[in-house]
Amino acid sequence: MLSTLKRFLIGRPLKSTALGEQKLNKTKALAILSSDALSSVAYGPEQILVVLITVSAAAIWYSIPIAIGVLILLTALILSYRQIIFAYPHGGGAYVVSKENLGIYPGLIAGGSLLVDYILTVAVSVSAGTDAITSAFPGLHPYNVAIAIVFVLFITTLNLRGVTESASILAYPVYLFVFALFILIGVGIYNIVTGDIPSELHTPIGTPVAGISLFLLLRAFASGSSALTGVEAISNAIPNFKAPAPNNAAKTLLAMGSLLALLFSGIVCLAYYYGIVPRADVTVVSQIAEQTFGRNFMYFFIQGTTALILILAANTGYSAFPLLAVNLAKDRFIPRMFTIRGDRLGYSNGIINLGVFSIILIIAFKGKTEHLIPLYAVGVFIPFSLSQTGMVVKWIREKPNGWVSKLIINTLGALISFIVCMMFFLTKFSQVWSVLIFLPLIIFLFHRIKNHYTAVGNQLGITTCEAALPIEGNVMILPVAGITHVVENSLNYAKSLSPFQIIAVYVHFEREDEAVFEEKWRKWQPDVRLVTLLSPYRSIINPLSKFIDTVQRKASESNYQVTVIIPQFIPKKGWHNILHNQSSLLIRAHLLYRRNVIITTVPFHLRE
Amino acid sequence: MLSTLKRFLIGRPLKSTALGEQKLNKTKALAILSSDALSSVAYGPEQILVVLITVSAAAIWYSIPIAIGVLILLTALILSYRQIIFAYPHGGGAYVVSKENLGIYPGLIAGGSLLVDYILTVAVSVSAGTDAITSAFPGLHPYNVAIAIVFVLFITTLNLRGVTESASILAYPVYLFVFALFILIGVGIYNIVTGDIPSELHTPIGTPVAGISLFLLLRAFASGSSALTGVEAISNAIPNFKAPAPNNAAKTLLAMGSLLALLFSGIVCLAYYYGIVPRADVTVVSQIAEQTFGRNFMYFFIQGTTALILILAANTGYSAFPLLAVNLAKDRFIPRMFTIRGDRLGYSNGIINLGVFSIILIIAFKGKTEHLIPLYAVGVFIPFSLSQTGMVVKWIREKPNGWVSKLIINTLGALISFIVCMMFFLTKFSQVWSVLIFLPLIIFLFHRIKNHYTAVGNQLGITTCEAALPIEGNVMILPVAGITHVVENSLNYAKSLSPFQIIAVYVHFEREDEAVFEEKWRKWQPDVRLVTLLSPYRSIINPLSKFIDTVQRKASESNYQVTVIIPQFIPKKGWHNILHNQSSLLIRAHLLYRRNVIITTVPFHLRE
Repeated sequence: MLSTLKRFLIGRPLKSTALGEQKLNKTKALAILSSDALSSVAYGPEQILVVLITVSAAAIWYSIPIAIGVLILLTALILSYRQIIFAYPHGGGAYVVSKENLGIYPGLIAGGSLLVDYILTVAVSVSAGTDAITSAFPGLHPYNVAIAIVFVLFITTLNLRGVTESASILAYPVYLFVFALFILIGVGIYNIVTGDIPSELHTPIGTPVAGISLFLLLRAFASGSSALTGVEAISNAIPNFKAPAPNNAAKTLLAMGSLLALLFSGIVCLAYYYGIVPRADVTVVSQIAEQTFGRNFMYFFIQGTTALILILAANTGYSAFPLLAVNLAKDRFIPRMFTIRGDRLGYSNGIINLGVFSIILIIAFKGKTEHLIPLYAVGVFIPFSLSQTGMVVKWIREKPNGWVSKLIINTLGALISFIVCMMFFLTKFSQVWSVLIFLPLIIFLFHRIKNHYTAVGNQLGITTCEAALPIEGNVMILPVAGITHVVENSLNYAKSLSPFQIIAVYVHFEREDEAVFEEKWRKWQPDVRLVTLLSPYRSIINPLSKFIDTVQRKASESNYQVTVIIPQFIPKKGWHNILHNQSSLLIRAHLLYRRNVIITTVPFHLRE
Repeated sequence: MLSTLKRFLIGRPLKSTALGEQKLNKTKALAILSSDALSSVAYGPEQILVVLITVSAAAIWYSIPIAIGVLILLTALILSYRQIIFAYPHGGGAYVVSKENLGIYPGLIAGGSLLVDYILTVAVSVSAGTDAITSAFPGLHPYNVAIAIVFVLFITTLNLRGVTESASILAYPVYLFVFALFILIGVGIYNIVTGDIPSELHTPIGTPVAGISLFLLLRAFASGSSALTGVEAISNAIPNFKAPAPNNAAKTLLAMGSLLALLFSGIVCLAYYYGIVPRADVTVVSQIAEQTFGRNFMYFFIQGTTALILILAANTGYSAFPLLAVNLAKDRFIPRMFTIRGDRLGYSNGIINLGVFSIILIIAFKGKTEHLIPLYAVGVFIPFSLSQTGMVVKWIREKPNGWVSKLIINTLGALISFIVCMMFFLTKFSQVWSVLIFLPLIIFLFHRIKNHYTAVGNQLGITTCEAALPIEGNVMILPVAGITHVVENSLNYAKSLSPFQIIAVYVHFEREDEAVFEEKWRKWQPDVRLVTLLSPYRSIINPLSKFIDTVQRKASESNYQVTVIIPQFIPKKGWHNILHNQSSLLIRAHLLYRRNVIITTVPFHLRE
């Protein structure tokens, strides 16, 4: 039944040979790889306002200079990543770049933050998408968390079915979103220029504001830079581009940067001129759209495409996380199961883990986007800084043609990313401190896992030439609970193997049982040796273990191997299992994990 | 670690021989066996008032005639149970009496309701005890459910340690409670007689009340009869009395009946004269105590002993449930595990199940005593009716000396119990309808379980003389994942058994792997046959199962037995298991349950 449900949800298994690759042209690539970055404008500008409004509505004008700062940061990042594209044409994820240039630990820090970050990508994007929906339909607001979880489950299922990044259908919502926002910004600017918007709505730029501080401005800047999350996506996906891949990727990156800059500036400007004040239950974009168009078709079109692109952005998490997990698992820093392709050829374990963890995050943060974003941004800017620093080291080490200008660009990128990072820690410590605990913990875990795999490899490798001891003979121990067909069955099996000794063991709780059973046994199987053990504490496992230890001590002296034969009857229906004492399972688990004996299970299938 | 915790909580295991029996004298027996019944006066009178107050405060005077009705019912029950005591000196539980006289299904109905009922005993008593505490300390009121759960866990742990019914310490709270209530009633009556209580507090008896109906009065009567729950306890425990057991038990029953009658009448009268109106957060007994003494020592003494006796009453559930479960399990109507004595000689599975289910009930009903009581009362009066009817049938069938008067008494008991039952269904259907669903479900389950055990018995019994087929030879199949010490180990073992054929099976996902591995294998183990299976869908189990099916078909033609040898490496630490694909476990489970093959697990213990 479970497997039928699975088939229904994710479809029939696919053959390994079906694993093809479709190359992306620039238009599609721009759409698919930039949904994460572009969708950030749906919450980035709002984050600036949320900080400024804590002073007063008059402080809102500071959003303009802060936005300019964010645009400068964006330019630096785009230029730096352009260089990474050419330097790592096979995909320059922060993990790879940091590991190669800075060493294993910086690589693990980058990898660890990215792993967490992709989970946050999903949580933030889905939460923000849900916000866009509940802004349009305020009646749904109390169900924010539930709606977000349904979306995550939906995207997880889609990815288990195998949505490839190249599915063209995913491209439409991105262009629709860009189109919708351009209309919004265009109409908005037209309204402002024609003077439809009363100028008393906004405080003129430069008005002195009481209570503003550098700390607060830095904090607003850091918050605003969360609009830049996702710009690294293109540099990770270069192999998916049509040839010449690096050139096409670089062009796509520039196009994305320009779009992002335009949309971001547009939203910030409109919010400023309209005098928008952030509200808990209606997003800033929703307020702008409502003031521009009223609640008509265009309003719902904008909210709809915003929700769509945000949910698509979550999907980029689903493309990136499993691939990073495969890389980490191949390097043996996380469990091997992440390298296994599921029925539909996706890395199902990565997909499922991502879904589960992002649902946990959504529940833990009650779907509140503004609480998730600082963590998300820190998680992005740590690997940003590390990969840029890695590039700096690379240029210094390799000194290719024109390396000085390259060095300057990456140094700038590294510096700005690092500063943004620090700003988060300085100005939003109460929201991001957990990174300082989780990151070392993750690195420690990576380390432990790696050690374990190395140790296992050393022990299993046949190269160690430790010849296994030859087995001179076998002793079979058969625990019996009565005289039944189940026991008969196992006994027959034991007798069919040779050369061997068979010892039947009967554990009894009351002294009177002993003689009775021995008598019965002698009549039934006179040629099989029976040992009876009294168990005053009514445990079967303890006396049995002790007996096996004794036998094993003797057996090992002459290189005999001890096998415990466990008769087990298998009921026809699963629920019948609770009707039977699961002694065989307990005995098996206990002996297998604690003692060095071989366990043979002889099933007896019940017919009804 | 888990087992250390277990030792700490429930103590060292006890030897079976430590199972002794202590006989009870009348004083102790009265205390221990009547806590359930006597504690009912803590909530019984309140239930009457809760129904009457729905009309008006003036209707409260009806509590007096209703209480008289309850006393008549009590008398009938005590007389009936007195006869059961003499007729079933070995313990006349409703299950036994109904089963013997009315047949198996009435017996199962009685047994099923009692099982549920004991769970309700625990839930109701603990909830009511918690109410007594939170009435005294209103600040604790919001934590009602949590406190109740802690009590259940505490009692469960105590019973797992093994509180025997005879522990004398349990006798004190009962007598303290009786003592406290007598003082309360005495002082209350003194106050009334001396005219300290203004008479305008209560409406005179006989005042006409608008809106009163027969339906409502019946409902109040049914509710009040919940004060009689627990009177059956003595008749179930006759073997625990000192000789002459039946006589002593009968005397104890009469004493308990008298005490119950006195306390019940006293509380009802005081509540009436004081004009007590039931409140959600303060119990009626607490209100009476507060009005009589104020919030001084006596008040807290009464609340304390009430809470204590209620929690002791829960303990009677823990004595009765596991014993009934043993009886049902011996008759094979519920899983066999209920017959197993735990480390401390108690029937741990019964105790744990009782604890878990009563916690579920407390949470489901949010610890609201008044919602649990109707279910509880129905659960009590169904077996009451059945066992009395059983006695009626017994008298008619056996016709002993003086059977006519015995017949009349039990007929009366059966009738009244049946009428009370019906009243619950008629007047409180919305609260007790679930009984009509659960009871048939439980009976159905009993039936299915019995059938299964009978079928298993028939298949296992060696008496069927179906000689097992002799095994002519063995085929060993060894799935291998690579060339490692783990495989070498298993191979050595397989080679040590003979006569046999060994087939190593290698499942690969990509066609290129095949030749490479075959080549390696040929160099390593030239004398062991290797079969390679391509798995285009990346499943190991499916191709392996198919291969095994083929081998088995051939093998069974010549009575060969197929054994699958599964190499499994056992990491040193439990958490390491998630670092390895648990293929061996999956393969084993799949083959064992779906195919008729023998599974041998060869462990390879990792040293680090």
